[in-house]
Amino acid sequence: MDLSFTSYNLHLIHTFTISRSSKNIEPCIIVELTHGGITGYGEAAPSERYGETPETVMNFLKSVNLSIFDEPFQLEEILSYVNEFAPGNTSAKAAIDIALHDWIGKKLNLPLWKLWGLNKEKTPLTSFTIGIDTLEVIEKKVREAEPYPIFKVKVGIPNDEEIIKTIRKITNKAIRVDANEGWKSKEQARDKILWLEEQGVEFIEQPMPASQLDDTAWLREQVHIPIIADENVLDVHDIPTLYGAFDGINIKLMKSTGLREAMRMIHTAKAANMKVMLGCMIESSVAISAAAQLSPMVDYADLDGNILISNDPFSGVQVVHGKLELNSSAGLGITFRK
Amino acid sequence: MDLSFTSYNLHLIHTFTISRSSKNIEPCIIVELTHGGITGYGEAAPSERYGETPETVMNFLKSVNLSIFDEPFQLEEILSYVNEFAPGNTSAKAAIDIALHDWIGKKLNLPLWKLWGLNKEKTPLTSFTIGIDTLEVIEKKVREAEPYPIFKVKVGIPNDEEIIKTIRKITNKAIRVDANEGWKSKEQARDKILWLEEQGVEFIEQPMPASQLDDTAWLREQVHIPIIADENVLDVHDIPTLYGAFDGINIKLMKSTGLREAMRMIHTAKAANMKVMLGCMIESSVAISAAAQLSPMVDYADLDGNILISNDPFSGVQVVHGKLELNSSAGLGITFRK
Repeated sequence: MDLSFTSYNLHLIHTFTISRSSKNIEPCIIVELTHGGITGYGEAAPSERYGETPETVMNFLKSVNLSIFDEPFQLEEILSYVNEFAPGNTSAKAAIDIALHDWIGKKLNLPLWKLWGLNKEKTPLTSFTIGIDTLEVIEKKVREAEPYPIFKVKVGIPNDEEIIKTIRKITNKAIRVDANEGWKSKEQARDKILWLEEQGVEFIEQPMPASQLDDTAWLREQVHIPIIADENVLDVHDIPTLYGAFDGINIKLMKSTGLREAMRMIHTAKAANMKVMLGCMIESSVAISAAAQLSPMVDYADLDGNILISNDPFSGVQVVHGKLELNSSAGLGITFRK
Repeated sequence: MDLSFTSYNLHLIHTFTISRSSKNIEPCIIVELTHGGITGYGEAAPSERYGETPETVMNFLKSVNLSIFDEPFQLEEILSYVNEFAPGNTSAKAAIDIALHDWIGKKLNLPLWKLWGLNKEKTPLTSFTIGIDTLEVIEKKVREAEPYPIFKVKVGIPNDEEIIKTIRKITNKAIRVDANEGWKSKEQARDKILWLEEQGVEFIEQPMPASQLDDTAWLREQVHIPIIADENVLDVHDIPTLYGAFDGINIKLMKSTGLREAMRMIHTAKAANMKVMLGCMIESSVAISAAAQLSPMVDYADLDGNILISNDPFSGVQVVHGKLELNSSAGLGITFRK
């Protein structure tokens, strides 16, 4: 098994602001895993929130030695080795996991959704993310986003109520909000959420810092819409800790170390009747198409990372009237564009 | 997709007694699912504990209509239809699930362990079950079971201490005990288990009736060895209810409705750091080989149902010095004997 990688700069169509940062360019690393004449693609979208940069990803990919394994089918052995190689590095690990799955799908000539026994018609709608911005730009973004039936709005900043009001002036479309740990006191979070409920917001994602789990459990008793965990859930072992505080989880391949762990997380969350959302970072169609393969199993999708960029090096899953549309090509179902 | 079935009587080498029943013959139903020239095999081993008989299984198999589906790859759709067709009927549902998986493995020319990315060398040892009997017969059974390094002993009857003493006179091999809900008071269960701990017993399975979950939680604080749930766990949704009362779960395909739900259960239990055991009913090599395909993922195996019978119509997984040995044949890796 041969592993190589290339770094890309993904250009954002609009400057992207959340409660802790603002960006025009997001780097990603595309991985190629070749064995027996077949190449599987993977992608790492490193996040500083989780201690990763393009350099840490490339160092990790240079350091692991996959040539000790016979073939990509040995998923459990290979991914155990990769996971134990070093702590963290979750997006680098995800890149390898995604490439192994793409290889297996191509080898068997099956799209992953079919390999997993899923129905590609059961994909959910994806939300379209509106980053933090001036009210004028938000109004413009909302009008541009006419094809998308659900908005995910970044809040957790002082004027977030103005942002919601601006969107509600224009449209009655479904709104989901993501505070990205932006509210630091439980009373503030409660007041914000009760107001958001009046605006018809569908659910709230990660209202408070991950370290304030007890405050979130208190909050759960004070508000009515579902509270979805993001920064509070990295892997499957976090899920049982969330009972009573959160109603659902947001799984991102870049946090979970890839598809295999994401599958475990989906089963574990559903066992406790928690809602499951599939989210993303700013990513190309490699990682977005990977996550979309799992999407027939989930309640909510926020897989728009590739829609927010202007120079996606791949094409794969499409979004038609907001619905994720999987194709029937093998593996991730992606094609290199240039 | 064409579904047909045949009923078999499996003959037990020794009369098999647990705390609630005694048997010489166990019926099973072998299912054949044919599509595109490939036949997948499945098996139902109905248990009266869960309201099934050979007649209920055959009625269920006659009533479902799989011809509405295009191909066995549509696992999620087909199994949702089967599960919602009628409540209960878990072994009949398992037979269909197993046959679908065997078909898929044969179609892709992959054993299931490889399709799932597992390492076939990582299978556990299986225990060998010693049913309730006279002390003379138990002594004879233990001597006959020389090749097996771990015993699973059925207790939960008045003279169960005599049974353990008889085994311990002959051997220091590992002993796991299964009370099959046999102890009705928590104090009795506590005293029994504390005594069993002195005999070096490794864990205790289902000490009290499934309805007495609170008593089992009390018991958990009083004893030291792991307490494993059997009758308390049917499907994945039961697992979160067991926290604090049980340290692990015994998954049986005939309770879980098959391999797909068993996989979900393994992931869910492991997320909460619970131990996972794979158990069985009296079954032929069809269902035992199916469960064995999952066994590289679990902590304990009790997959000896086919070893206890004299007329197994199939061969599949082997047991060598107690270790489950998977082969590299496609699907379940089974061969019809006659």
